[in-house]
Amino acid sequence: MKEETWKTAITKIEPNKVILRGYRIDELMGQITFAQAVFLAIKGELPSEKEARMIDAMLVSSIDHGVTPPSCLAARTIASAGSPLNAALAGGILAISKHHGGAIEDSMKMIQEAVQRKMEPNKTEEEMAAIILKEYKEKNKRLPGFGHRIHTKDPRTIKLFQIATDLGIAGEHVGMAKAIEDAVEQDSGKRLPINVDGAIAALLCEMEFPSELANGFFMLARLPGLVAHVYEEQTKMKPMRYIDPKEHEYDGYSERKI
Amino acid sequence: MKEETWKTAITKIEPNKVILRGYRIDELMGQITFAQAVFLAIKGELPSEKEARMIDAMLVSSIDHGVTPPSCLAARTIASAGSPLNAALAGGILAISKHHGGAIEDSMKMIQEAVQRKMEPNKTEEEMAAIILKEYKEKNKRLPGFGHRIHTKDPRTIKLFQIATDLGIAGEHVGMAKAIEDAVEQDSGKRLPINVDGAIAALLCEMEFPSELANGFFMLARLPGLVAHVYEEQTKMKPMRYIDPKEHEYDGYSERKI
Amino acid sequence: MKEETWKTAITKIEPNKVILRGYRIDELMGQITFAQAVFLAIKGELPSEKEARMIDAMLVSSIDHGVTPPSCLAARTIASAGSPLNAALAGGILAISKHHGGAIEDSMKMIQEAVQRKMEPNKTEEEMAAIILKEYKEKNKRLPGFGHRIHTKDPRTIKLFQIATDLGIAGEHVGMAKAIEDAVEQDSGKRLPINVDGAIAALLCEMEFPSELANGFFMLARLPGLVAHVYEEQTKMKPMRYIDPKEHEYDGYSERKI
Amino acid sequence: MKEETWKTAITKIEPNKVILRGYRIDELMGQITFAQAVFLAIKGELPSEKEARMIDAMLVSSIDHGVTPPSCLAARTIASAGSPLNAALAGGILAISKHHGGAIEDSMKMIQEAVQRKMEPNKTEEEMAAIILKEYKEKNKRLPGFGHRIHTKDPRTIKLFQIATDLGIAGEHVGMAKAIEDAVEQDSGKRLPINVDGAIAALLCEMEFPSELANGFFMLARLPGLVAHVYEEQTKMKPMRYIDPKEHEYDGYSERKI
Repeated sequence: MKEETWKTAITKIEPNKVILRGYRIDELMGQITFAQAVFLAIKGELPSEKEARMIDAMLVSSIDHGVTPPSCLAARTIASAGSPLNAALAGGILAISKHHGGAIEDSMKMIQEAVQRKMEPNKTEEEMAAIILKEYKEKNKRLPGFGHRIHTKDPRTIKLFQIATDLGIAGEHVGMAKAIEDAVEQDSGKRLPINVDGAIAALLCEMEFPSELANGFFMLARLPGLVAHVYEEQTKMKPMRYIDPKEHEYDGYSERKI
Repeated sequence: MKEETWKTAITKIEPNKVILRGYRIDELMGQITFAQAVFLAIKGELPSEKEARMIDAMLVSSIDHGVTPPSCLAARTIASAGSPLNAALAGGILAISKHHGGAIEDSMKMIQEAVQRKMEPNKTEEEMAAIILKEYKEKNKRLPGFGHRIHTKDPRTIKLFQIATDLGIAGEHVGMAKAIEDAVEQDSGKRLPINVDGAIAALLCEMEFPSELANGFFMLARLPGLVAHVYEEQTKMKPMRYIDPKEHEYDGYSERKI
Repeated sequence: MKEETWKTAITKIEPNKVILRGYRIDELMGQITFAQAVFLAIKGELPSEKEARMIDAMLVSSIDHGVTPPSCLAARTIASAGSPLNAALAGGILAISKHHGGAIEDSMKMIQEAVQRKMEPNKTEEEMAAIILKEYKEKNKRLPGFGHRIHTKDPRTIKLFQIATDLGIAGEHVGMAKAIEDAVEQDSGKRLPINVDGAIAALLCEMEFPSELANGFFMLARLPGLVAHVYEEQTKMKPMRYIDPKEHEYDGYSERKI
Repeated sequence: MKEETWKTAITKIEPNKVILRGYRIDELMGQITFAQAVFLAIKGELPSEKEARMIDAMLVSSIDHGVTPPSCLAARTIASAGSPLNAALAGGILAISKHHGGAIEDSMKMIQEAVQRKMEPNKTEEEMAAIILKEYKEKNKRLPGFGHRIHTKDPRTIKLFQIATDLGIAGEHVGMAKAIEDAVEQDSGKRLPINVDGAIAALLCEMEFPSELANGFFMLARLPGLVAHVYEEQTKMKPMRYIDPKEHEYDGYSERKI
């Protein structure tokens, strides 16, 4: 009745030995950053030094975005009812979905497809971007990874692309994302800027990260922010308060320099 | 009928500006690692350079421990039923609880109390450790953060304490943890070694991390491992298989060097 | 290495046969209501005819309470982000906790203790109720199951106690709950009425339901309400809307008779 | 900045008054069963007397199916790590998904489509069933709601259809499900029996239940079973045990009669 022994390629556990993707965990500790370990655990290989710095910047960019995202509101609502941290975080993660974080995966697929189709009929980036835009307009679909309800020039996108350029990571996927941004402007006269989801999507493409894990990447990045929000809710707020998603104010540190 | 505006001290969002704990997010990106950002988001202040390296090592130490922890089994079970990544991860996080990860918080409280009580009656570390041990034995309670079902000399503990010593972070909390380890040996003749939970607990004490967030720290560390397991389950395993928690085998990379 | 075979007393599965707590499921179907099956699954025995009717009334009483409870807000927030039904329901259940539903368990414990302590020193219900009240006041604790932020005469409490009286289920636990209500009025001049949590608590005591499952009973009762809310959110509302916990209005059926 | 007031048609809350879908909750209590209230909450209308009995039977049929379903294993795994009831139940619900419970929705869609397409080209049930079967075979897809890994003649299906016939609820959707079952036998010589998912699917079609809520219906039915399993795990089992999905045994009541 026994199924045969099943296989896993992630971690090997022996007495006094833990091997992650082939590396002794105690050899990794102190030598690589957590961001590098994230890459190793998921992709199976250590990132290059440059990729490591890119990933750190990407994870930092998405660590928090205030109280209005549904992940934060769900986590705070659950915490406010008296549930422990893990329940609140689980609720937060359940809200990272199609409309919240989900654009990264859709954007990766769009960019990957555009880069691939560009090669076959041997088109320029501009021509391919225009085709993609036309197709989305015809299907009446939103371009995933473009536009933001608050930011017109998202500082995170600008910085991510700058770092990617400095590190030599920006390649044809970043190029395609920018070409689509230009195509929109030429078509409509208005700029619909690449948002942080679109920028992360382009960079995950450059690093050949599986698009199915794009949302997972965002969850990893956002979890610390959720921990901070739940802790604030648990330690400073009255239980069972009405959590108004609009009427709130920042009362933390004034702007300061590193 | 309106509650007054509520306050949050974590992140300030303005058009084209994201301020985390007082720092512009685009200034942080590229300058700090994700581990530093984790510390900043939760504690409200940037860690020192040395603390930053310590935290990276701690997060790396706990990124995965194979398929047997309940967080991994719960996540794989949910994924195996056809649920998406966020549902599986939420299930995994729900299993990080009293008996899985929970020892970190209990261990922090024990160590903090021991360090504090040592000062008042002006006892040596050895005397205080012996008192704590005696009290736990009388109440028939397990010492949290000591002993492991697989490892007798946990390589992660050894490396964490070595790094902490090198960085000058190991202080009286690490000292107290070691004193308790010695007290057990003197009392019973057997060594009940500090496990990775206990080591992380001592180090979180040194960095004045709130003990209520100890479990949260572990969740942050383990989430990437869970992503890797869910992805393996989704891409390599048959849906609805019986997931035997014992009959499995590692078939990943052979041991290799960085 | 194999653990010994583990045991379960709930359901026996054989080819073409399903036995729940000793009864063939196909014999139960058509003969008992779902509420009776709930009792059987959890308690291990079928309820009496009268208990069955009581449980139905209790489950009906708590099936929904509008959009403001945190379980509803968490579920809607998660649904609004594009997550599927099960994720939204899981989030809702995670919000049923200490401050939301949790009063039932606390109230059961208070009532059970009061009934027990009344016997030993042989006190009247009134005397015992006064003692309990005094103790809660001294510890500055709220009486669990008393008072409501909206209802002063909760119609559900009134109806539950009336049905319990008609069925002969109301016994010394209901009596004690009422005695405590009277004691408060005598002490303070104000009535702090038994709320629906307190009424359910007293009735679960009468039926010897384990107090650890009180919250579970409430989750069972509320889940259909959550399904209705999530479905409404998914089919009628715009994704990612701000879900204001105060500015909402009922636009359903006008009052009607069965 | 304020969104306009949002609307909900489920429950109206006023001081001392709770109105569910137009009915006073205290009028419903004692008059309708919980199963009827489930139907009312979700569909917005009270079921007929016959539908009410049908729903009770359907909910009872799925209240538990032993320890092997992923919802049960996930819930027990989370409970075993020391998490509270609501966390374990949330994990269980997260495992009710595409491959576990999900066949009900797929089956509803298949049956509804078959019934609809039968009318247009004016085919007999047999002809239409054969077409559906052919299409599924060509696409190499499993027929949702047919076949079971344990039961060849699922006693729950037999009883559900018998009750449906007695109550006059079995109509063309049940007919179509049976026609497909016959078509398979004629085509392959083997019987691939309608399982409990398929039977529930056909009956939910008869009662015009929205197919998007099919999984939700199953979650409602299964939750009490999960409560029983979590409670057994918490009260009788050692924490952190290896939960073997195969090596278990029933040690409950011997078969008995109502």
